[in-house]
Amino acid sequence: MEQRVSLITLGVTDVTRARSFYEALGWQGQEVQETVFFQAGGLGLVLWGRDKLARDCGLPDGAATGFGGIALSHNVRSEAGVDDLLTAAERAGATITKPALPNDLGLYSGAFTDPDGHAWEIAYNPGFPLAQDGSLTIPDLNGL
Amino acid sequence: MEQRVSLITLGVTDVTRARSFYEALGWQGQEVQETVFFQAGGLGLVLWGRDKLARDCGLPDGAATGFGGIALSHNVRSEAGVDDLLTAAERAGATITKPALPNDLGLYSGAFTDPDGHAWEIAYNPGFPLAQDGSLTIPDLNGL
Repeated sequence: MEQRVSLITLGVTDVTRARSFYEALGWQGQEVQETVFFQAGGLGLVLWGRDKLARDCGLPDGAATGFGGIALSHNVRSEAGVDDLLTAAERAGATITKPALPNDLGLYSGAFTDPDGHAWEIAYNPGFPLAQDGSLTIPDLNGL
Repeated sequence: MEQRVSLITLGVTDVTRARSFYEALGWQGQEVQETVFFQAGGLGLVLWGRDKLARDCGLPDGAATGFGGIALSHNVRSEAGVDDLLTAAERAGATITKPALPNDLGLYSGAFTDPDGHAWEIAYNPGFPLAQDGSLTIPDLNGL
């Protein structure tokens, strides 16, 4: 298994609402058969009906009940960038679940959930460099 | 918000078990403070205690109960590649939740859950090209 991810599919209850949320944050996608595809760096982020996604995975669906066990992070290039994005997300309809705070490792981050409860962390992490194209490289962590 | 994802963090109940699973599939990671970081293309895939991740997102944790609402896909370059990877995943301790099947759009895919129930779809999708480095480009979907 190559060390990469091709698609992240978020199960949603209302594709139009979910699409509007991400578009309000500036993303642009394509919609085909009630499925929205966003190019997100070297992978695709997809919005699809939660029931269809569960079925496609061969899993019983169930109502979203709190934390789903996965968080997506979007790292930015400054602390101000974290604040700005959290403000924009709240304006777009996100629920801020953790206001931005520094931690003792130099990370500055906050978190929100999208309209379907999917968790996003927004972080400035000077230890994890972002390339100009936004790709992230995990540094050598020996010695931390 | 730039159109990209920096990290995907999977909440797990046993970091060592989860790390062993992904390493059995050939991934290599670094572990720091009970957190495992894998470089996965242009982003990081992280394994972290589910309770800590929930807290970091400002969300109440709850036991994993079935489908968490998100699926990760790993696309490969042939139908045989799907079969091979599902076999390897099962051998590594995954639960096959959907055996590989073709659909009417030319996709060939199956699905499994990892030891913590996180859903992975393994797909051969000739309509979504993979670059040599494994990055995926969503094609122009007009006309589908």
